[in-house]
Amino acid sequence: MGSVWGHKINISLFGESHGAAIGCVIDGLPSGLAIDFDAVDAQMARRAPGRSPLSTLRKETDRYEVLSGILNGKTTGAPLAVMIRNEDTKSQDYNPDILRPGHADYTAMTKYKGYADYRGGGHFSGRLTAPVVFAGAIVRQILAQQGIVIGARIYRIYDVTDEETAPDDVLDLLPDSFPVKNPEAKERMQQAILRAKSDGDSVGGIVECVAIHVPAGLGDPFFHSMESRLASLMFSIPAVKGVEFGDGFALAQMTGSQAGDGLSLQEGKICFASNHNGGINGGIANGQPLVCRVAVKPTPSIQKIQKTVNVMKGETVSVTVKGRHDPCIVPRALPVVEAMMAIGVYDFM
Amino acid sequence: MGSVWGHKINISLFGESHGAAIGCVIDGLPSGLAIDFDAVDAQMARRAPGRSPLSTLRKETDRYEVLSGILNGKTTGAPLAVMIRNEDTKSQDYNPDILRPGHADYTAMTKYKGYADYRGGGHFSGRLTAPVVFAGAIVRQILAQQGIVIGARIYRIYDVTDEETAPDDVLDLLPDSFPVKNPEAKERMQQAILRAKSDGDSVGGIVECVAIHVPAGLGDPFFHSMESRLASLMFSIPAVKGVEFGDGFALAQMTGSQAGDGLSLQEGKICFASNHNGGINGGIANGQPLVCRVAVKPTPSIQKIQKTVNVMKGETVSVTVKGRHDPCIVPRALPVVEAMMAIGVYDFM
Amino acid sequence: MGSVWGHKINISLFGESHGAAIGCVIDGLPSGLAIDFDAVDAQMARRAPGRSPLSTLRKETDRYEVLSGILNGKTTGAPLAVMIRNEDTKSQDYNPDILRPGHADYTAMTKYKGYADYRGGGHFSGRLTAPVVFAGAIVRQILAQQGIVIGARIYRIYDVTDEETAPDDVLDLLPDSFPVKNPEAKERMQQAILRAKSDGDSVGGIVECVAIHVPAGLGDPFFHSMESRLASLMFSIPAVKGVEFGDGFALAQMTGSQAGDGLSLQEGKICFASNHNGGINGGIANGQPLVCRVAVKPTPSIQKIQKTVNVMKGETVSVTVKGRHDPCIVPRALPVVEAMMAIGVYDFM
Amino acid sequence: MGSVWGHKINISLFGESHGAAIGCVIDGLPSGLAIDFDAVDAQMARRAPGRSPLSTLRKETDRYEVLSGILNGKTTGAPLAVMIRNEDTKSQDYNPDILRPGHADYTAMTKYKGYADYRGGGHFSGRLTAPVVFAGAIVRQILAQQGIVIGARIYRIYDVTDEETAPDDVLDLLPDSFPVKNPEAKERMQQAILRAKSDGDSVGGIVECVAIHVPAGLGDPFFHSMESRLASLMFSIPAVKGVEFGDGFALAQMTGSQAGDGLSLQEGKICFASNHNGGINGGIANGQPLVCRVAVKPTPSIQKIQKTVNVMKGETVSVTVKGRHDPCIVPRALPVVEAMMAIGVYDFM
Repeated sequence: MGSVWGHKINISLFGESHGAAIGCVIDGLPSGLAIDFDAVDAQMARRAPGRSPLSTLRKETDRYEVLSGILNGKTTGAPLAVMIRNEDTKSQDYNPDILRPGHADYTAMTKYKGYADYRGGGHFSGRLTAPVVFAGAIVRQILAQQGIVIGARIYRIYDVTDEETAPDDVLDLLPDSFPVKNPEAKERMQQAILRAKSDGDSVGGIVECVAIHVPAGLGDPFFHSMESRLASLMFSIPAVKGVEFGDGFALAQMTGSQAGDGLSLQEGKICFASNHNGGINGGIANGQPLVCRVAVKPTPSIQKIQKTVNVMKGETVSVTVKGRHDPCIVPRALPVVEAMMAIGVYDFM
Repeated sequence: MGSVWGHKINISLFGESHGAAIGCVIDGLPSGLAIDFDAVDAQMARRAPGRSPLSTLRKETDRYEVLSGILNGKTTGAPLAVMIRNEDTKSQDYNPDILRPGHADYTAMTKYKGYADYRGGGHFSGRLTAPVVFAGAIVRQILAQQGIVIGARIYRIYDVTDEETAPDDVLDLLPDSFPVKNPEAKERMQQAILRAKSDGDSVGGIVECVAIHVPAGLGDPFFHSMESRLASLMFSIPAVKGVEFGDGFALAQMTGSQAGDGLSLQEGKICFASNHNGGINGGIANGQPLVCRVAVKPTPSIQKIQKTVNVMKGETVSVTVKGRHDPCIVPRALPVVEAMMAIGVYDFM
Repeated sequence: MGSVWGHKINISLFGESHGAAIGCVIDGLPSGLAIDFDAVDAQMARRAPGRSPLSTLRKETDRYEVLSGILNGKTTGAPLAVMIRNEDTKSQDYNPDILRPGHADYTAMTKYKGYADYRGGGHFSGRLTAPVVFAGAIVRQILAQQGIVIGARIYRIYDVTDEETAPDDVLDLLPDSFPVKNPEAKERMQQAILRAKSDGDSVGGIVECVAIHVPAGLGDPFFHSMESRLASLMFSIPAVKGVEFGDGFALAQMTGSQAGDGLSLQEGKICFASNHNGGINGGIANGQPLVCRVAVKPTPSIQKIQKTVNVMKGETVSVTVKGRHDPCIVPRALPVVEAMMAIGVYDFM
Repeated sequence: MGSVWGHKINISLFGESHGAAIGCVIDGLPSGLAIDFDAVDAQMARRAPGRSPLSTLRKETDRYEVLSGILNGKTTGAPLAVMIRNEDTKSQDYNPDILRPGHADYTAMTKYKGYADYRGGGHFSGRLTAPVVFAGAIVRQILAQQGIVIGARIYRIYDVTDEETAPDDVLDLLPDSFPVKNPEAKERMQQAILRAKSDGDSVGGIVECVAIHVPAGLGDPFFHSMESRLASLMFSIPAVKGVEFGDGFALAQMTGSQAGDGLSLQEGKICFASNHNGGINGGIANGQPLVCRVAVKPTPSIQKIQKTVNVMKGETVSVTVKGRHDPCIVPRALPVVEAMMAIGVYDFM
């Protein structure tokens, strides 16, 4: 049972990639919120496939229907349910007997004893992130009312890393569908993706997400630390295999005197000399920008030959994964990571 | 509210570093478990300070008292409560007006409006990991009955990294209080710590933790993925700022064809050619060793001068953190990381 | 946030009476369950209105669509989402300015600051029990595999009480849409309902629900006692204002020697001389039939004149509640109470 | 796992009647609360045994030690842990082989496979309500700051019922250790208890608990209705077998026109003509007094001969329950019921 998350907000996710529909139920929204559906649509469009040569050719309009929780354009306070019908599915591309390497096929088969919906990854499909983006698009409107703004950029694709930059700069990049600070790095990243595509291969990357104006004092110690709660959301995104806050793994090779975010008083306000801790101390926001980076593995759906098992025939086979797939899911992961950040921050409020 | 964690097992943590006692209540243990308290003591000793020149001089015997849940040496099935009285505290070393940089002093002051117990970090102290180690020591005895074994090694200290090695080798290193595979790396790591100590500084590092024989099928999709649940525990450990599974961040710079853990059938059993995914696909264990690395920041309690704020006087001041502190907490973090892994795996069973 | 319940099973309820749809997401079902949809339909029909002169004339087909979680007629193990479109709504019957006495109109208006969907009670409508019955109909198929059978009878309507009877007799009454043991009491109960109907009034009653073959040992102490968990579900049903187990309130006027369920050994098995405790001791099932009674208040939707407030005009007014309403909801509550019992028992397994 | 409860507040209960200690961890208290420990002591004294000829002779001082969460008399915001050492236990009075009828002996033995602490009921002992009263005594101080006051009276003992009265009158009775409105009823209730005592028997009763000034709008629909949450707490109290709100079971024999709590505007404020619903509509407080009644069964610990089973010898035997027991636990249950009400109301705030 993994489809439910949250304390203040509760998100119950449902659906399988090639079933009737996907969606979620969101409980815990305030009543009276006038929802800007254009803004929601914009977020959904960022995630939707089929819009760029860097992405899959699969077209998913991701047209959603709100089933409850909204009256006259405003939230009623009751659970908001949203549903997205599945379209343009090519279920015949999927063979339940062949375990796609790097996917959840084997683990789902084991856990669900052969009854999981195998088509397109079923419940494990990245497609399930569409309702997450919807939920995030609602929640960030609430956060925005309190000045909290969230954005993400592509920090790395394969062997190309963007330059370091301030959180405000990350937010400035938001309108771009491929947000990278350094133009040359951006160019090289796109080339790496197109090269992988022409190779029938894929590449991974890193997303950096920031949230500014998160009020100091938000968060909890220990098991519900900001890092714990946000990481549990980030690791919910299929393909994410690493999460760090502030300087993260780089802190491991620093001294205490280098890593200390010295404090000072400036015009009566507490200021920090640096943000190595990514805006969080003791699990609680310190008022500085939250900075989180997530490592996205290269999608395992590639045309290159991989070795795997046909469970029905009981033999090792060679496969090339069919279906229309992304050579790099990092650009489409950006709104998902932002949505998770929004949901996580809101849950603490 | 952050002191409570778990579904199958429920751990409720309490205590402040310089208060009367610390401890936890563990609900969800099976009845009839004959507890090996020598094994518990051994785990507690690994975490306890004052045992090595690489550690603090502070002596904490961490003598625990079991208050409930055990009768005639066996668990009753009712909640097991454990308490550790605080001793050898030098509360006068702590000044509530001075915010120690890199600590939770400022965020705790903000969140709790000045009423948090500031002495020695209060509830945010690393000392709170003692009951976690106790809980982990119980839980790993249950896991061991099912063949699941957990161990951790020091993967990096400051600028020294250990060599790559198989999970079984990590387990072989367990008896060592400073477990590193490569002897030369070990030597250089210890020198880095002693150098930091003599500089009045500190260094960070990375812990690698493995769990073998976790049965395939354990785990859940999405919000309760193995990665999500384990990361939420790992990020509960004070000073942890990054968590990765399998190749983690290194996956970001790989191609799909490099990262695919190809499957094959060998003597009727499913085998993997590699373990880039760290034993987890789609949030669910695949039967390979779980591999998790956590980045530990250098402790901010250093004697070097740091800039900070005296909130009572309303001025920026220079401080050197008093008290008896570790130049590197990575060695003492090993049993804590293992305990969190044990608790996390058990919670799925 | 009240729409989410459960540990082993998780039910997330959504919808408003006159919105687009109602439904729920059920997480935690086992995979591979072949669902008998005829049995589900039968349960839905028991709750659906418009089938009897004792009930409302409002027709709700309660035709449901399964959106996820089922493949080839069997559960996949992923969340099962179900949706029922709202039809035959007469929203114009409802005036948001008039607070219907005995309904949630005033409390919903207060809690949701005027934004709640007021039409037909919105999220507070008894209509929301339709997805509950659906969920219960699934769950009781799982219970039945383990021999656990659940049934309910009408124990009282207004001033007419049925005779005491054994749990097995209650189950025998199940096929009847108005299950009462004593034929004369049944006749008088129906007359009481028809009399209330012709008076433009309504009457309350008591439902008695039993579950047999619940295995001894199921349940938990204290906060998650069988009584606690089941009562939390029963009190979720709109109009329920009292819940008791075993002899319940009658125990208050008994002595310990009368109320003791003496034990004996018969052919090596533990037997009880009586079942005053309703199958539960210390929160845990003792193997005897679970017996639970719930008090259902008379529906406040009556044609008789009631005094209330027009909040827009700021004046006290007289109203007769329009819309097509039940003179007694007890008969339609039977499958809802059974569904809650099924969900509650399953959650402990 | 049943020892943990709550969303806003989290209470983790531990202990066994004859073990080292009982207690609880309370997470979710605000920081900076100056605790009136005299008021806490007064509540503890109301529950403690050995103070009246109507109660057991067993002396439990119930002296508690606060282990964490308080600094200089004020809450720190971190978990508050409290411990009560067990004293004056006569463990030899208990024989694990004899299942005491009406107790949890059989169900605990079954659930915990023979490993439960059987002495004095172990974790199922009414003694576990001492930490609950402690927690309630803290929480009601927070509620009192917002004007919310809670009190309970004895509504019935055996065959004697108190007269109906207004909630404010119930509060007026609070200083009395045997609070009954009607003096004659009080006299007869006490006689009933003394008669049961001299008979070696016991009697049950009903507690009525009220909470005034609970703000309208507090609560949630459905699964987390005020009734659901409060009932789950009330049914956690050992011996409680029935819970009702407002007129409760009496509503079953009323018509809608009798039961409607008509509304009117008086000086701009919404008023109710009656309170049949006990202050709750649709699961949400309506601003009227909350009224809850709980049925307490006669304690099964009686000297009269009961039939039961000796599991070791495998035979049916006759027993008289030894130990020092209450002929009626209703008077001592009053502060427990109030504590649960306080905890429940606070959890919604």
